[in-house]
Amino acid sequence: METIWQQAEGLSKEMTARRRDLHQHPETGWTEFRTACMIIKELKALGYEVAFGADVIDEKSMMGVPAAAELEEYMQRAISEGADAELVAKMAGGKTGIVATMKTEQPGKTVAFRFDMDCNDVEEEKEATHRPSKEGFVSQHKKAMHACGHDGHVTIGLAAAKLLAANKARLSGTIKLIFQPAEEGVRGAYAMVNAGVVDDVDYLFGGHIGFKATTDNCLVTLTDGFLATTKLDAFFTGVSAHAGAAPEQGKNALLAAAQAAISLNTISRHSKGSSRINVGVLNAGTGRNVVPDVASIKLETRGATTEIDEYMVSEAKRIINACAAMYDVDVKIVMAGAAPACFADKELGHEVAELIEEKCHYDEVLEYVDMGGSEDCGYFMERVQQRGGRALYMMYGTRIAAGHHNSHFDFNEDCMWKAAATITEIAVHFSNK
Amino acid sequence: METIWQQAEGLSKEMTARRRDLHQHPETGWTEFRTACMIIKELKALGYEVAFGADVIDEKSMMGVPAAAELEEYMQRAISEGADAELVAKMAGGKTGIVATMKTEQPGKTVAFRFDMDCNDVEEEKEATHRPSKEGFVSQHKKAMHACGHDGHVTIGLAAAKLLAANKARLSGTIKLIFQPAEEGVRGAYAMVNAGVVDDVDYLFGGHIGFKATTDNCLVTLTDGFLATTKLDAFFTGVSAHAGAAPEQGKNALLAAAQAAISLNTISRHSKGSSRINVGVLNAGTGRNVVPDVASIKLETRGATTEIDEYMVSEAKRIINACAAMYDVDVKIVMAGAAPACFADKELGHEVAELIEEKCHYDEVLEYVDMGGSEDCGYFMERVQQRGGRALYMMYGTRIAAGHHNSHFDFNEDCMWKAAATITEIAVHFSNK
Amino acid sequence: METIWQQAEGLSKEMTARRRDLHQHPETGWTEFRTACMIIKELKALGYEVAFGADVIDEKSMMGVPAAAELEEYMQRAISEGADAELVAKMAGGKTGIVATMKTEQPGKTVAFRFDMDCNDVEEEKEATHRPSKEGFVSQHKKAMHACGHDGHVTIGLAAAKLLAANKARLSGTIKLIFQPAEEGVRGAYAMVNAGVVDDVDYLFGGHIGFKATTDNCLVTLTDGFLATTKLDAFFTGVSAHAGAAPEQGKNALLAAAQAAISLNTISRHSKGSSRINVGVLNAGTGRNVVPDVASIKLETRGATTEIDEYMVSEAKRIINACAAMYDVDVKIVMAGAAPACFADKELGHEVAELIEEKCHYDEVLEYVDMGGSEDCGYFMERVQQRGGRALYMMYGTRIAAGHHNSHFDFNEDCMWKAAATITEIAVHFSNK
Amino acid sequence: METIWQQAEGLSKEMTARRRDLHQHPETGWTEFRTACMIIKELKALGYEVAFGADVIDEKSMMGVPAAAELEEYMQRAISEGADAELVAKMAGGKTGIVATMKTEQPGKTVAFRFDMDCNDVEEEKEATHRPSKEGFVSQHKKAMHACGHDGHVTIGLAAAKLLAANKARLSGTIKLIFQPAEEGVRGAYAMVNAGVVDDVDYLFGGHIGFKATTDNCLVTLTDGFLATTKLDAFFTGVSAHAGAAPEQGKNALLAAAQAAISLNTISRHSKGSSRINVGVLNAGTGRNVVPDVASIKLETRGATTEIDEYMVSEAKRIINACAAMYDVDVKIVMAGAAPACFADKELGHEVAELIEEKCHYDEVLEYVDMGGSEDCGYFMERVQQRGGRALYMMYGTRIAAGHHNSHFDFNEDCMWKAAATITEIAVHFSNK
Repeated sequence: METIWQQAEGLSKEMTARRRDLHQHPETGWTEFRTACMIIKELKALGYEVAFGADVIDEKSMMGVPAAAELEEYMQRAISEGADAELVAKMAGGKTGIVATMKTEQPGKTVAFRFDMDCNDVEEEKEATHRPSKEGFVSQHKKAMHACGHDGHVTIGLAAAKLLAANKARLSGTIKLIFQPAEEGVRGAYAMVNAGVVDDVDYLFGGHIGFKATTDNCLVTLTDGFLATTKLDAFFTGVSAHAGAAPEQGKNALLAAAQAAISLNTISRHSKGSSRINVGVLNAGTGRNVVPDVASIKLETRGATTEIDEYMVSEAKRIINACAAMYDVDVKIVMAGAAPACFADKELGHEVAELIEEKCHYDEVLEYVDMGGSEDCGYFMERVQQRGGRALYMMYGTRIAAGHHNSHFDFNEDCMWKAAATITEIAVHFSNK
Repeated sequence: METIWQQAEGLSKEMTARRRDLHQHPETGWTEFRTACMIIKELKALGYEVAFGADVIDEKSMMGVPAAAELEEYMQRAISEGADAELVAKMAGGKTGIVATMKTEQPGKTVAFRFDMDCNDVEEEKEATHRPSKEGFVSQHKKAMHACGHDGHVTIGLAAAKLLAANKARLSGTIKLIFQPAEEGVRGAYAMVNAGVVDDVDYLFGGHIGFKATTDNCLVTLTDGFLATTKLDAFFTGVSAHAGAAPEQGKNALLAAAQAAISLNTISRHSKGSSRINVGVLNAGTGRNVVPDVASIKLETRGATTEIDEYMVSEAKRIINACAAMYDVDVKIVMAGAAPACFADKELGHEVAELIEEKCHYDEVLEYVDMGGSEDCGYFMERVQQRGGRALYMMYGTRIAAGHHNSHFDFNEDCMWKAAATITEIAVHFSNK
Repeated sequence: METIWQQAEGLSKEMTARRRDLHQHPETGWTEFRTACMIIKELKALGYEVAFGADVIDEKSMMGVPAAAELEEYMQRAISEGADAELVAKMAGGKTGIVATMKTEQPGKTVAFRFDMDCNDVEEEKEATHRPSKEGFVSQHKKAMHACGHDGHVTIGLAAAKLLAANKARLSGTIKLIFQPAEEGVRGAYAMVNAGVVDDVDYLFGGHIGFKATTDNCLVTLTDGFLATTKLDAFFTGVSAHAGAAPEQGKNALLAAAQAAISLNTISRHSKGSSRINVGVLNAGTGRNVVPDVASIKLETRGATTEIDEYMVSEAKRIINACAAMYDVDVKIVMAGAAPACFADKELGHEVAELIEEKCHYDEVLEYVDMGGSEDCGYFMERVQQRGGRALYMMYGTRIAAGHHNSHFDFNEDCMWKAAATITEIAVHFSNK
Repeated sequence: METIWQQAEGLSKEMTARRRDLHQHPETGWTEFRTACMIIKELKALGYEVAFGADVIDEKSMMGVPAAAELEEYMQRAISEGADAELVAKMAGGKTGIVATMKTEQPGKTVAFRFDMDCNDVEEEKEATHRPSKEGFVSQHKKAMHACGHDGHVTIGLAAAKLLAANKARLSGTIKLIFQPAEEGVRGAYAMVNAGVVDDVDYLFGGHIGFKATTDNCLVTLTDGFLATTKLDAFFTGVSAHAGAAPEQGKNALLAAAQAAISLNTISRHSKGSSRINVGVLNAGTGRNVVPDVASIKLETRGATTEIDEYMVSEAKRIINACAAMYDVDVKIVMAGAAPACFADKELGHEVAELIEEKCHYDEVLEYVDMGGSEDCGYFMERVQQRGGRALYMMYGTRIAAGHHNSHFDFNEDCMWKAAATITEIAVHFSNK
């Protein structure tokens, strides 16, 4: 009988084809209509119970959703590119999340896997030195590119779905496959977690392609150092006035925003651990000779712990409001994304490492890597841990052509079938515990 | 024999038609290709000696010129809207200024009149409550509108050209008609003055439609209170970095620009008179989680005297450079426009008032109004005065539908033929002095 | 019969002696105990009805009063230097203002004159090149000097009191002599005005030694250009913390104060006229390695009109509060002084000029000079004008050794008897109207 | 034969007396004239070779030295309190450091111990609840208090000197006792290290009373987490001007300093580890109505590594200079103190712990505590380590009445003789290696 590893390798070709189709049709956060339709159809065909739209997305918890008109355009594009119009309609408002459930015959644990689906707002490299360009699967969408490997993640998720269905007899309990929108900007997880999709989960596994791998055929079973982060937008509204004739009649939104940018950077260091503050974008004003009445900033805070990030956010909000008060302008602060710090389960990481070393054929299995960034998978992990479950975030180590989010990003597609095999072995092992 | 006033009134209908054609085809500063071609043809037809392009524009003194690609687009648009391609080619680079000269038989003074041609970067109101929309002569160009009456100024200039030609026998010396590009943003006058076009002028007259008129049929013969002004752009270039992973590797252009905006506003008041500072636009950064490596600001200074404005500019430049140094980023400061304060010649204003009260039929002739703003006609006036000539800036008082630069701006077109008559009378009077 | 001019000249010697005694015993605002005791005794001896202390000072309106302990020290010093302890006790709390009233037999106008008494917080020059040092009447008090001529003003007031008593028969109505404390820092006038001391006055005259005189024997009858001004102190209180061990536990008063200093300087220029802002003093912090929990600033605003100054103050208060909010610290804003802009009564200035040219013997009588500064005499003038009376501020022009407030300040003492004569002539003239 | 522990206990009473004498005569950094004279005499009497003054202090490396006049006052006070005038004269300029050397007969290692001598600028509590006040040994100097236990350190050093002399026969090699001035503000060590006083040392030990002890009779053999730190003063000099009459003529030092305070706090976090910035003191300006021409700030940076602190200092200097340039004022930046991060020698800590557990009688011996602060003993340790030697910083754990630098600070004097015993045992052990 074929091992799972062998079965997975057999899927290699179709996985590469699927990944390349997705790569040509990247969809930005909350607009993964075409991607989701494909996933839904596939999972239904495999016999999964598939929930999506409002059933798996808590509307009030959605962050950083594009404007209605923009969503509408993306829905139309998805349909024009083959998405099922009826399914798309059910995901209106950007509710593109999906949860597929497979209940087995035997009692056992509930084991969940989380995959993210969205692309980056990056224009993909068109030069022939970039493999997707040379081999004809470069992005067909402007300013949109799978530069973070989520095309691979979706492909892995669907291949795992197939392998799990094929190995159903060896599984116990319940398997859940979670496809999350809007990971970029850490916007989507919170709404799925608040819809309760992991409230019954005993084991949750997330993962990512290509992080800091030292070899091309490697698995990292435990990722630590998730920084908690919060993304905020602030919109300042003042009163315009002629800068020569009546400057005192203006209320200067540009100065309020500029002051906020500076003052935010004066938030004190925290003695309990690392913190970060960045005002990444500031746009203000309408004309040189007009006292500016509009301004906006995009910022983010981070913290080594959720507590430190909360300190940063609390300071940031007070400062932004004070800057508005200083120039007598109004300000609206909007949550645009968030992810928690989270607890790395070293024992679980070790258990997975032992399992995989036995079952799979990586050149290297590492039990630790430092993330040094933020991921909203943390929300899933945190919720599962709070309810007594266990959670882990893995890295599917592989050679990458350029750093994540870079317009030259690409990866060795072999890592995908290996990841699918790994997931299937994990499901078999932990569902039977 | 018809008086000049009567002759001018006879031109009323064709002036309205011309103004409305111009109103439909507004052209922003340094791109007045269609407007200029029409003016050149008309003036040549009237027998004027017509210089334009590099002959009347000093390239090194041009400020705030659009990028080459943009100029190219505007040239093509002008040709597609009827401009003579050959003439347009001669104005390449934005050199759309024109000087028409008429030498008379008799020795006498050189009397010059200056008209500006460019439009505002304003989207014109499309509602029927706005007369140009209702009567079908609304702007056909996006984000472009004659909202400052320069369509009227060109029309006045061409009608005056016709009247002057018709009354050549009554004139002495030399008449010069100057059509200046890029008055908005006070960008164009400096380059024409530095090309020497008023170096031989004894009397120079500028004027504007609609300013602060108390009645609908009014002339103001002397405008005072021109604020000197300087327009500057500053471009900051730093180094981007990941805001979470390595913030200390960034050089933050956003903070430099924000600090400049604030610090510029701390320039001390000046005990010798009014000053102004405004940072009207600030744009910075590329993404929320990236230390921003690019930023730019658009600012302006003003002063009751050129000396005060120079103080403001000198302070501003030092501050901008210091802000760049503070965040270790590069900065490039570019002159984007300028106008001097200028001396109001009360005697000349009085002489014109007496002349016009006798020759024309305004309900009201005022000898003084406060501009309370800036105009680069000041450069022409200053140069003429420095060389021993005299200069004046008038207001063609008329009812306006909304303030200048407003999307609802419109004026009573009757003011145009009256202004043309006024100009002609002034030419007759002063050329014979 | 001797003219008033001649009578005054006869007082020259005793005036010089008195001025020099005062010069040796300068007293800072609200602590003029010795000065006031001397004035009270002198005026009583001349037969005036003398009110002082709480009768002429509204306690709630006193601004910038020294701390109780400091006042106590100054009271003791005054007593040790000859002041009457009983009188001093009646001026407790700094209520050192005096109003002397002389009612004549004939009905007539009420004419008031205002004199200020306090010194500057300046260390007087001790070098022999400085006449008071050379001639032995240099200040005997540390960091205290009559560097603004108020020793002369008191001397003039007392000489005028003598001349007025001697010429009582020529006077009508009522004469009031007002001796005001704490003019420096514009702190004292408001409390006397609010005690109602000029509510019955028809004509009020203020004056100053030495301002911008072009000759040594000159009178200016009308001073214009009083800038309205407000003096504010702000005290910030935060929370200290160890800057290395727990910086996030601090609330940084230093940063709040520093930000206030900068933001206050960004208050917009006003299109209606001149404005000023100055943060003259900032002190903050207790130690290098402690997050600073205390900070204070001393600032002032000015305006060409009271309305503009009020705009500045309103902006300033909002900004200071916002800066405190920004760093989560408390702030207390205290009024430390104020003076209004005021209306210059040109007709009255002209009438006085004509009178003085006839009666006195100045080389020059000017009807106008620009103050270009602030004086709380404006409160007296404003109140008198609001109630239908008339008011004027004069300059007793004389050569000065150095600018006002300079440690080398000195003046030609001859100006004093001339001023006393001038005041007496004005009283005779206007009380009889 | 008595053990060293027993010998030390026998010194208990004289140690308490000495500590209390020192406690009554605290001397601030670089002015430890009385303290040093006493130490020199004592050490000479014990037979040590004693170097001090310029022999052990590199003048160019002295940081944060008081002004000459101040030093002079402190020298006089020391003499008036019993110091030897001749010795004091040899320490002129604040060179109060001392190095005592004892060469033994046997070849062996050079073992050095470092003690600091200066007090804090704190006013000691006078209430009877404070033991030094109740028992009559409270500080007799204003604003000076041994609130960090350096009186105890000196006492320990001298007792160790006595014990070492008494046990000379058991020692090998060379023993050095280093008494360092000006540890507060981390100002003194650098100058002694640069004078070469530890260039020949194989083992160096520092130590401190009272840090984070969990019991009253405890020794910590290894302290880690020394933050590198730099102390800077910046002095800004501008041009004063009358804030009402000619504000534009001023160059505002207050604004430059305030801006520096704010901008310094915007220095980016460092991804490699903790950093700190604090502007602890800002003083600026002379009067409310004067554009301020003087300002100063006291600041400090810290870093988890010397490299991070150097990054902070480099950023800080650029920012301070830019703020001066912004307001066109001069600035002088002065080094006022510094300490490096340093390497904690865990093996040595373990070896000492084993030794002490055997030889001494502490209730608890810990091998690790986190300093979480800065200490210039780091310079000695760093130099010794750079030259191949080994170094350690210990804590003499004892109950303290209040935190270090607090006006209620006090400690259990029993810790002193135990520390002296510990030092002696260490010397015996390591000199014989």
